[in-house]
Amino acid sequence: MPRFFMAGTNIMGGMAVIRGRDAEHVRVLRLRPGEDMIICDGKGTDYKCRLVKADKEQAEAEVIEVVPCPAEPTVKVTVLCGLPKGDKTDYIIQKSVEAGASEIGFFASSRCIARPDAPEKKLERWQRIAEEAAKQSGRGIIPQVSWVGDFAAMLDVANKKDLGLFMYETGEREPLSEVLDKNRDIKTAAIVTGPEGGFQPFEAELAKIVGLHICSMGERILRCETAPVVALTAVMYATGNLS
Amino acid sequence: MPRFFMAGTNIMGGMAVIRGRDAEHVRVLRLRPGEDMIICDGKGTDYKCRLVKADKEQAEAEVIEVVPCPAEPTVKVTVLCGLPKGDKTDYIIQKSVEAGASEIGFFASSRCIARPDAPEKKLERWQRIAEEAAKQSGRGIIPQVSWVGDFAAMLDVANKKDLGLFMYETGEREPLSEVLDKNRDIKTAAIVTGPEGGFQPFEAELAKIVGLHICSMGERILRCETAPVVALTAVMYATGNLS
Repeated sequence: MPRFFMAGTNIMGGMAVIRGRDAEHVRVLRLRPGEDMIICDGKGTDYKCRLVKADKEQAEAEVIEVVPCPAEPTVKVTVLCGLPKGDKTDYIIQKSVEAGASEIGFFASSRCIARPDAPEKKLERWQRIAEEAAKQSGRGIIPQVSWVGDFAAMLDVANKKDLGLFMYETGEREPLSEVLDKNRDIKTAAIVTGPEGGFQPFEAELAKIVGLHICSMGERILRCETAPVVALTAVMYATGNLS
Repeated sequence: MPRFFMAGTNIMGGMAVIRGRDAEHVRVLRLRPGEDMIICDGKGTDYKCRLVKADKEQAEAEVIEVVPCPAEPTVKVTVLCGLPKGDKTDYIIQKSVEAGASEIGFFASSRCIARPDAPEKKLERWQRIAEEAAKQSGRGIIPQVSWVGDFAAMLDVANKKDLGLFMYETGEREPLSEVLDKNRDIKTAAIVTGPEGGFQPFEAELAKIVGLHICSMGERILRCETAPVVALTAVMYATGNLS
């Protein structure tokens, strides 16, 4: 069933009035009166609607049912990645949204090769990728993509979650599965992964001191764009959100 | 530590003699006598070696230790994907190798959009992608990539594993996590995912009849190149291979 986010829609008195780009989209999809569609409020609620009328500027639909979006996980996971080179950001955003992330943030760390002067300029494009992926995968929210700032700013964000997971490739670590087994009823979590060159030992130490769990995901070395998706899938699995 | 697969190496009497492309590689990396490297036999065994001599044609290293490659999972997972369009195959191969697959196979199903006349012609390129990913992620084997054939041929391959998992988006399904929780001590598994358009109902029915588990991974719709990696990660997590 076609899904829309509510940006261009007003719902009043049991009727949804769709304008702008979304009305255009209704026309492109050749939806006819009597056909059903889902309008999502972007906060996890789905409005199942039946199209009543559609013309160039505006479409009208009757609200049939209001339900929580079934695709939204019970745990809100913030994916925090050391800024990688090139279009790996796009890949991380798309796959993290599909896999159930609530927010995605990029930060600068000491081994980042990519150092854009103004990553804020990319936010619009990043957000559009998140929106596309959210529509395509049937999400009930459009996950926010943000530029977090430096390593310390990232620690501050991660530390405010119920569970902070810092993925690290060497040294003393807790197996990710053990940490998750002990924390199955969390409501929020942060997953922190590094850029291409990984983290420096002092960064892992800092993360540990502020209370993040330094985690291993086995002996296979994951690329910087693969690690967040694998870690996120593990969190979804452990919290019962992959079934 | 630099890793090599044994293709160009002979190990005899505690010494490894490296020739051809790998000897060239030793030179490119500017490894010096006394430095350590790992030579992997491609069957899960690592030979930790110390370089004794390196010239243009040949390098020699002393074998210091022989250990099972720690990156190899305890479960051998065969990832079977309906042939997708374009370079999504490359992505599936690279990420599946990183995430721990033992074999990757592509097959034709009724909703495949891509229908190359001779997918066998791509095997060499596919295998090279697997080899690169295996080296990069520190795997102990080079996972085999193959063209399986049609849907029936795929069923035959999947059905010979301890556990066959068929990912399907609608209808009556078992949650993947429930199936995995009951099968934590499997030695082999097959993960079957569809092409862009998914599977037809008759294909899911056939899969069920031959004994595969028809599984759901939640209500989020995963792209055809994302689903195998997410399912594989779930299998690795459930069998204790992600820690």
